[in-house]
Amino acid sequence: MRLRRLRDSMQKNGIDAALITREPNILYFTGFRGGTYLLVPLDEEPTLYVYGVDYEAAREELSSIDIKLLRYEDDPNKIISEKVAELGCRSVGFDFLDAKTYEKLGKLLGTAAELREVDEVVWSLRTVKDEEELKLMAEAAHLTELGLEAALEALRPGVREYEVAAEAEYAMRRNGAEGPAFETIVASGPRSAYPHGWSSDRTIREGDLVIIDLGAKHAGYCSDLTRTYVVGKPTEKQLRLYEAVREAQEKALKAVRAGVEAGEVDAEARKTLETHGLAKYFVHGLGHGVGLEIHEPPRLNQASKAKLKAGNVITIEPGVYIPGYGGIRIEDTVLVMEEGAERLTKAGYGLSVA
Amino acid sequence: MRLRRLRDSMQKNGIDAALITREPNILYFTGFRGGTYLLVPLDEEPTLYVYGVDYEAAREELSSIDIKLLRYEDDPNKIISEKVAELGCRSVGFDFLDAKTYEKLGKLLGTAAELREVDEVVWSLRTVKDEEELKLMAEAAHLTELGLEAALEALRPGVREYEVAAEAEYAMRRNGAEGPAFETIVASGPRSAYPHGWSSDRTIREGDLVIIDLGAKHAGYCSDLTRTYVVGKPTEKQLRLYEAVREAQEKALKAVRAGVEAGEVDAEARKTLETHGLAKYFVHGLGHGVGLEIHEPPRLNQASKAKLKAGNVITIEPGVYIPGYGGIRIEDTVLVMEEGAERLTKAGYGLSVA
Repeated sequence: MRLRRLRDSMQKNGIDAALITREPNILYFTGFRGGTYLLVPLDEEPTLYVYGVDYEAAREELSSIDIKLLRYEDDPNKIISEKVAELGCRSVGFDFLDAKTYEKLGKLLGTAAELREVDEVVWSLRTVKDEEELKLMAEAAHLTELGLEAALEALRPGVREYEVAAEAEYAMRRNGAEGPAFETIVASGPRSAYPHGWSSDRTIREGDLVIIDLGAKHAGYCSDLTRTYVVGKPTEKQLRLYEAVREAQEKALKAVRAGVEAGEVDAEARKTLETHGLAKYFVHGLGHGVGLEIHEPPRLNQASKAKLKAGNVITIEPGVYIPGYGGIRIEDTVLVMEEGAERLTKAGYGLSVA
Repeated sequence: MRLRRLRDSMQKNGIDAALITREPNILYFTGFRGGTYLLVPLDEEPTLYVYGVDYEAAREELSSIDIKLLRYEDDPNKIISEKVAELGCRSVGFDFLDAKTYEKLGKLLGTAAELREVDEVVWSLRTVKDEEELKLMAEAAHLTELGLEAALEALRPGVREYEVAAEAEYAMRRNGAEGPAFETIVASGPRSAYPHGWSSDRTIREGDLVIIDLGAKHAGYCSDLTRTYVVGKPTEKQLRLYEAVREAQEKALKAVRAGVEAGEVDAEARKTLETHGLAKYFVHGLGHGVGLEIHEPPRLNQASKAKLKAGNVITIEPGVYIPGYGGIRIEDTVLVMEEGAERLTKAGYGLSVA
């Protein structure tokens, strides 16, 4: 089904063969984890090129794909270009090649076939999730919520950031996650002012703002969820900042629907923070697509012209980061629908923990 | 110090400025986690280009590097090419560019500056670990051993593969690891015949071969360790296979020293397995470099001409995989020295667990 949609797009774009090199793309089109190159001609059986390490598994799992063994002494560029010549393809679309491979393969293909980057063709398929994917992403989101619950149970004055992360990741894994979708962020006190934090050995103290940003990986699919807490009684300033970020997230969520420009959704959050005088502390984009990778298109930021589509799964994650003071971020993974958005991450809100 | 060594290499290779784009390379040269492009001219202060999300952290952490803020509406290629022109550089070496960026940046630079891939220059530095790196890698290896111990405690008939992985990862994390260096493999029974397995929900049974392949990430550095066990009393065949793989690993380890060709070390293991009639089941290369990434040069396989150097950290991981029966792999992360090898992973050997 996915291969058929790829071929439809190839035909529309005048591509005779697609050369897929990125691991998540190979997984998306074949269901197989592994393999080095997938060559998909318009009218013939696809070929998956694999090294010995993946050969038996590929032969076992894949029935309608030709499996070819690569040896270390082979030049994969030569093998690909010979296959392209054999198929008589005049235009080869690729998802991703590094500069060196692009030059080498281009030379080998010569004037017989044109080499064209068609990454957007692949993304236009991958960014619209099908039902099977949405089921897995809902499960990934649920595992993430279990991680957050475990983090909350561990969160108290005297505990180290990485200890909280350990409990969250353990809970996700024990419940069946493949692992964290990215390095769990537990950023407390002044560290919460760095949006790209991680979990350090800092000891959490009463009154600290604590950002917890985590995601489970499940059957290849990622989830992404952030909550911010204060250990103990929040100050008025902390509460005011929190409410502003919550309001920004709500406004942005209300703006999400198929057809809207991603930049407009970002603008909703930014405008809301501006009314609180906080827009200058919102130093990143509002969100990003999620799927087999944690950061996918569409990007939601001030410059983003991408139009949201039904079936996109995106994050909505406004934040404010005040250097030397601390930060607050609230993030959910949501499904874009024709008439709105549905939260996949269903964790509750609230700044204060016991 | 690392930047000085980079500049020495640039000078030797006729490079006026190095454009570093890969995250682990930026981390290696700056110590900073984040940033999008690092431009290192021969004679002037380097510039790190960062988006808002990293800006405050970069300014705080980096004193001798100029930090430039990228906005979403910027064209980074234009910014880089203007800086190159301003510096008057005639040749720009890059570590990695995708095909599209390579073409765009090449056009913008025009005839003013040549764009050259110099990935090997960067790797020639990164593959020789300095003392600070070796200390962190020894710590990563120790955390991995703690993970293996926890896995062993959990390993018994009736437990699921991912539950064993969960205990291992939890132990590594609780002890200070940033997370797993790669998706932990617990592959039992027939699944152990797939060298690239992962941890499934298969229930482990008495008599199963169980491959446990795991690694901790610590301060950015990876470790890699594999042991294979039989739950219960091993059969004679299992023992025979195990002893053959152990012998192959020992022979390979004895062949490791500075100056030897990586392919020769691979050949030692392969020859040993051949004497047992098992070489055809050894379907992957003997090992790979390890560092800030789990798979680095040098690669150790049949075709590898790379000469090992003192300071390389590599894995030695022979295995046999018999389709439908099961597999055995034994792996250690080792430091290459002038006169031999030192194991960084110090876990004991032995097939049988209680």
